[in-house]
Amino acid sequence: MAFLKVVPLEKALDVVNALPLKPKTEDVPLEEALGRTLAEDVISPMDVPPFDRATVDGYAVRAEDTFMASEANPVRLRVVGEVHAGEAPSITVGEGESVYISTGAPLPKGADAVIQFEDVERVGNEIIVAKPAYPGMGVMKKGADIPKGKLLLKKGTVLGFKETALLSAVGIARVRVFRRPRVAVISTGNEIVLPGQPLNAGQIYDINGRAVADAVREMGGEARFLGIARDDLESLKALILEAVEWADIVVLSGGASGGMRDLTASIISELGEVLIHGIAIQPGKPTIIGVVKGKPVFGLPGYPTSCLTNFTLLVAPLLRRLLGREGQVRKVRARLKHKVFSVKGRRQFLPVKLERDVAVPILKGSGAVTSFIDADGFIEIPENVESLDEGEVVEVTLFG
Amino acid sequence: MAFLKVVPLEKALDVVNALPLKPKTEDVPLEEALGRTLAEDVISPMDVPPFDRATVDGYAVRAEDTFMASEANPVRLRVVGEVHAGEAPSITVGEGESVYISTGAPLPKGADAVIQFEDVERVGNEIIVAKPAYPGMGVMKKGADIPKGKLLLKKGTVLGFKETALLSAVGIARVRVFRRPRVAVISTGNEIVLPGQPLNAGQIYDINGRAVADAVREMGGEARFLGIARDDLESLKALILEAVEWADIVVLSGGASGGMRDLTASIISELGEVLIHGIAIQPGKPTIIGVVKGKPVFGLPGYPTSCLTNFTLLVAPLLRRLLGREGQVRKVRARLKHKVFSVKGRRQFLPVKLERDVAVPILKGSGAVTSFIDADGFIEIPENVESLDEGEVVEVTLFG
Repeated sequence: MAFLKVVPLEKALDVVNALPLKPKTEDVPLEEALGRTLAEDVISPMDVPPFDRATVDGYAVRAEDTFMASEANPVRLRVVGEVHAGEAPSITVGEGESVYISTGAPLPKGADAVIQFEDVERVGNEIIVAKPAYPGMGVMKKGADIPKGKLLLKKGTVLGFKETALLSAVGIARVRVFRRPRVAVISTGNEIVLPGQPLNAGQIYDINGRAVADAVREMGGEARFLGIARDDLESLKALILEAVEWADIVVLSGGASGGMRDLTASIISELGEVLIHGIAIQPGKPTIIGVVKGKPVFGLPGYPTSCLTNFTLLVAPLLRRLLGREGQVRKVRARLKHKVFSVKGRRQFLPVKLERDVAVPILKGSGAVTSFIDADGFIEIPENVESLDEGEVVEVTLFG
Repeated sequence: MAFLKVVPLEKALDVVNALPLKPKTEDVPLEEALGRTLAEDVISPMDVPPFDRATVDGYAVRAEDTFMASEANPVRLRVVGEVHAGEAPSITVGEGESVYISTGAPLPKGADAVIQFEDVERVGNEIIVAKPAYPGMGVMKKGADIPKGKLLLKKGTVLGFKETALLSAVGIARVRVFRRPRVAVISTGNEIVLPGQPLNAGQIYDINGRAVADAVREMGGEARFLGIARDDLESLKALILEAVEWADIVVLSGGASGGMRDLTASIISELGEVLIHGIAIQPGKPTIIGVVKGKPVFGLPGYPTSCLTNFTLLVAPLLRRLLGREGQVRKVRARLKHKVFSVKGRRQFLPVKLERDVAVPILKGSGAVTSFIDADGFIEIPENVESLDEGEVVEVTLFG
């Protein structure tokens, strides 16, 4: 294995951007489309409503027949039939005629207005109209709501219940969405134990496996946690080979020890290629990016906050690409709650909690679990900066 | 069936609040807990870390042995062993001794500090220390991150990836969450057709079935769409009976016709009891609330915007109760974009779109599908108010 040197973040991002992963798409039934991302523009295949439709219960009339109607000189129209919602009316409204119509029913030929039934008096086979109707009154015209050919939803739209309802309205039963990216997650380390198992002296429970898998799911990906690899070449190799069979992306989170990291790098090197081994950021110095059987494999730092920060910087953009949500980076601007110090010559990412538009730095150190739990994201302190002042405007990259 | 009269919204809400539905809980494995709501407080069952832990690679020492160390007079300590992450050290650090320790490993007995290896010189079996260490240096104390007995997460917390990671950190493998409320959804109407099926003259595609089912899912409930009931007593009765077998709540959305509504009311009355038939709000006048076999059955208006507004007013609070999220009503304050008029004597709910803190009224009429698609929620115009002015501060109830 060639020894690679620590590279700037930009170089690591170039490597990530150059990875040959392309979004895949699939057709899903509309009833399973909630939360998915559209892989193509959706154009309305039809007019909504598909016909001129009564918006009230009443009488379909020819408006011109009523133009002279007044309280003093009401107009009488013969009722020649009725039409209900769901029916195709065969009847035509001629001069001096009307048709009883219920809300939602198609307007019969000849008619161009619906007078609601409260506004007429029905006497036997006639209605008495005391006020003029205007053309289009009580009617929603064909295509008035959604015209055929209209762009309904753009590629990249995440489908919420309003969007699935809109697709339903135009009769679309299947949609083309981006396939959920598959991420295999492996934890490494001799000291790591799965929750539910007994903890021996010197051991701690795994955090990163759950955090990464569930962060992937929250972003809209599919995650499989493959378990914990010990400091043992064969078990880690077997897990990585299992991972690349299924996954689009493999994420390992490192144990605390340098030995584990070296082992990871040498296995990736044996099975494929190590592209990056170490990034000049804090946290993130031990981060590995490699490729095995065409699948990117990330080795992230072991401390939860470090792991999640590097996940957000390096893996999340790739997930967004596969999800068709490129460019939808989650960043907000906030004011720094108090002054923070950094080490000059080190590009640092510092976890912060957001309280409205104030960013509160979390200074527990990356080893604390609670620092990542309390944080909403992180800010960057550039290499050439030694401190950021209270009240300074910072850009917060949200986790995930 | 007794004819009930139109009641004020408060009366309808009292009826909803008095429904004897109680949240149910269930245990789920942590790997399936994402997005669920905690049904009990979670107290940490352990200290994190569970032992005094090295936070750097280096040498565990007794700090007092180094108090006199300086560049001029360095202290020499014998290296008597090593301890790695995941191991239980049996060794003890005595006076003048040190132990090689890797990050994450438990501090051996006797030691109270870890000097990182870059800060010492190793010569054969000794290290040369040129700077004093202080007690606790390079060590995270047992329980410093999370002390045993600490309240970690409160009942009612929706579990995101940070929360599941936190639970993992303290070794919790199963959590008690509120069971997802089950909502059966039925569309009614002779003119309604399911997407994917051919549309005959006079027919339109179903919107509410998809909208209600997916709104329930977005809220965290389980939804089953049981299909479309025609204006036919037996088919609707069969669907309602099927619905109450499985569901906690049944939601019907009405066809356009008054006949369909009367049919729904009379079936509920036959199978159980109609509690409310008509609410003095616009939209919502035809809304029905009943109980069949102990399960609440809602008959909502047919127009999508009306259906969703009444769902948000009446059904969503019940869902929040079952989800253990009572009181988490989603309301925001905004300024009205332009003046809107209402009819005095009618309590009206008007759909609005939010553009930052501005509420833009959507005035297409409740029959338009697009009005509900464009809207983020609705504002209320009280009975005794004829208009709301441009710039007026309004409270927007968000849909769902």
